[in-house]
Amino acid sequence: MTSRVAVIGLGLMGGSLARALKRLDEPPFVLGSDLTAGRGDLARAAGAVDELCERPLDAVATADVVVYATPLPVTLDLLGQHLEGFRPDALVTDVASLKGPIKERIVALGLSAQWVGAHPMGGAEQSGFEASRADLYAGARVWLTAAVGDHPMGPRSEALWRSVGGVPAWTDADAHDARMASVSHLPQLLANALAAALAEEGLLRGDLGPGGLDMTRLAGSSPDLWLPLLEASAHRLAPALRELAGSLDDLADVLDSHDLSAVQTFMARTRAWKEHDEWG
Amino acid sequence: MTSRVAVIGLGLMGGSLARALKRLDEPPFVLGSDLTAGRGDLARAAGAVDELCERPLDAVATADVVVYATPLPVTLDLLGQHLEGFRPDALVTDVASLKGPIKERIVALGLSAQWVGAHPMGGAEQSGFEASRADLYAGARVWLTAAVGDHPMGPRSEALWRSVGGVPAWTDADAHDARMASVSHLPQLLANALAAALAEEGLLRGDLGPGGLDMTRLAGSSPDLWLPLLEASAHRLAPALRELAGSLDDLADVLDSHDLSAVQTFMARTRAWKEHDEWG
Repeated sequence: MTSRVAVIGLGLMGGSLARALKRLDEPPFVLGSDLTAGRGDLARAAGAVDELCERPLDAVATADVVVYATPLPVTLDLLGQHLEGFRPDALVTDVASLKGPIKERIVALGLSAQWVGAHPMGGAEQSGFEASRADLYAGARVWLTAAVGDHPMGPRSEALWRSVGGVPAWTDADAHDARMASVSHLPQLLANALAAALAEEGLLRGDLGPGGLDMTRLAGSSPDLWLPLLEASAHRLAPALRELAGSLDDLADVLDSHDLSAVQTFMARTRAWKEHDEWG
Repeated sequence: MTSRVAVIGLGLMGGSLARALKRLDEPPFVLGSDLTAGRGDLARAAGAVDELCERPLDAVATADVVVYATPLPVTLDLLGQHLEGFRPDALVTDVASLKGPIKERIVALGLSAQWVGAHPMGGAEQSGFEASRADLYAGARVWLTAAVGDHPMGPRSEALWRSVGGVPAWTDADAHDARMASVSHLPQLLANALAAALAEEGLLRGDLGPGGLDMTRLAGSSPDLWLPLLEASAHRLAPALRELAGSLDDLADVLDSHDLSAVQTFMARTRAWKEHDEWG
């Protein structure tokens, strides 16, 4: 069973995982490490980590589960740096929201037997330990993927995420990343684009109603965390953006021609999808 | 002072207003009317109305405040039908989210001296009395407008909305409607367009994380309520949609050319707007 968990990166994702683990009836010993000044101390003061390690490698060395909750490029770097440091029986996992780049690195490093990647779809537009909370993963879908089929560490990985309230499901890294371009990256850039359009007109968040607030909340997301994701996703995201742009142009045409029945049909179909998961 | 309020239309907006009024320390007598079968009975059973009138005109006749919370075209019709029915000292108001078409009708009917229009920016993608709640307007901006400057019934109108937690502010009907095209209608159609794109790919709401859920919530809005608004707003909305489509195409180009610093700048500016109401 899991008894010593190393959480590398104590921001929103890692901090929330550490908090949740320490709330379990039989909590594991949690080692934490974060290179952002002061963040580790915050996490220790909050009771989210038992032992704070200045060097991530020191947290890794004695853990039976190692979780990377660092930005994508940092995780890719650390995996290589820590290659000799893992216990041979340790589960190595990560929470990156794209699994393809991590899987590729894992395979290149010969770590496939120890790695089960995870993407918990809890999140927020805030970042940092200050934004973390023990219930971030409650009810959240957690996508799991591995570089080999029927991974022997699969059950341990599932149990880890279930223990903090997540709902694990297995996926293929490529299929997962394609889906993320649609369900995560596209909405993110739409929120940015809408916010930019409103800002250009001199409108403020305070001018918005509840719907407009929902539609611009993601504009607060961290550019630093998003850039590597957008870069890795660019080949899928660019066509998706163009397709959406085309449908906005079509809508504009329909409005110009006052073809209200087309708008009615369009809204009714999307409403059916939203309310009943049906696309009429 | 306000002692008898007629609420015409007991859906989300009217139902919430009636509920809130009946929770006041000194609640007015609330007359309600709604042509949707069963809705009035729901409102009476919930204690939101004291007297239910089958014909809207009967609710209007004895009221010192008449609130139209019906869809835009219905409000336009009823104003004409009720013209002879208002008490001469009654404040006539409405909650339509576009003020220009209502103002035009009011002027044509010679009702300017009795009308102060309102647009409370509380709302939800749900509709109907079932979705109403007493705190819908708590903290909500309520735009007020009139067909004459410094309207003598302005203070009564402000007091009405303040009593249910709203934050009144005065605006010009045209300027208001132009702003709504940006802050309300554009986000609405964006949510529909994103939902349609996801649906076309076979993705369900359950596939989304918190951000994607926020960005598609409005797709559940009622087409019937929205069509008249979109039609009245079409001349402003179509250009806004095309401009947004253009910025999505630009983003796609930037991603294709892997010009990540441009994306970084773009996201940082929208984040500054979101977090600090600043457009860098």
